[in-house]
Amino acid sequence: MAKYDADLSPIFQALADPTRRAMLERLATGPATVSALAAPTGLRLPTVLRHLSVLEEAGLVRSAKDGRVRSCALVPDALEPVRGWLDEQRAVWTDRLDRLDAYVMTLMEEGANDRRDDP
Amino acid sequence: MAKYDADLSPIFQALADPTRRAMLERLATGPATVSALAAPTGLRLPTVLRHLSVLEEAGLVRSAKDGRVRSCALVPDALEPVRGWLDEQRAVWTDRLDRLDAYVMTLMEEGANDRRDDP
Repeated sequence: MAKYDADLSPIFQALADPTRRAMLERLATGPATVSALAAPTGLRLPTVLRHLSVLEEAGLVRSAKDGRVRSCALVPDALEPVRGWLDEQRAVWTDRLDRLDAYVMTLMEEGANDRRDDP
Repeated sequence: MAKYDADLSPIFQALADPTRRAMLERLATGPATVSALAAPTGLRLPTVLRHLSVLEEAGLVRSAKDGRVRSCALVPDALEPVRGWLDEQRAVWTDRLDRLDAYVMTLMEEGANDRRDDP
């Protein structure tokens, strides 16, 4: 767990808002200016800039100013820690179900043996 | 996006806290009482119950009271919408990189043809 855990909280926090997820979805298709990111949201620029700064602090997006225009881009592989955490959870869960399966199988075999032993 | 988006915010919100992630990690290994969940956190029971209720409202955990003991269990596949969203983001991103690759390839071929055309 440790290897992923450190930065997971700000990432999940950043993903917990539909506007920020929409911004990430837009940036997955390619870099965009802040105005282009703001347009489909219908939100005012300061609000969008606030969302952008949450995404940047979580390490999901970076932005740079070129003259009067701020351009934003996804940080490649920034969501991989989330995938890693999910994979670990699934592995633990699947392992548990496998062990449950094995246990139920043992019970069924014991039951079959008991019935064979009956006179 | 639509099919996953509805319930993603409360799920991400629930995952944005290390104590709640630790509770989920514990529950991946099997059901547990609230006291068992609380023990490794070092937190007081009311705090743990508050975290539990965030996890339950997000649909990640369910709990039931049996006498004086409350038992908690993971809701199977409750994290699948998160995986679905990640997969979609990765697909869009990969598609974009593929198109970039194809574009660069075209530029290189055009360059090679231009050089061949040079006297």
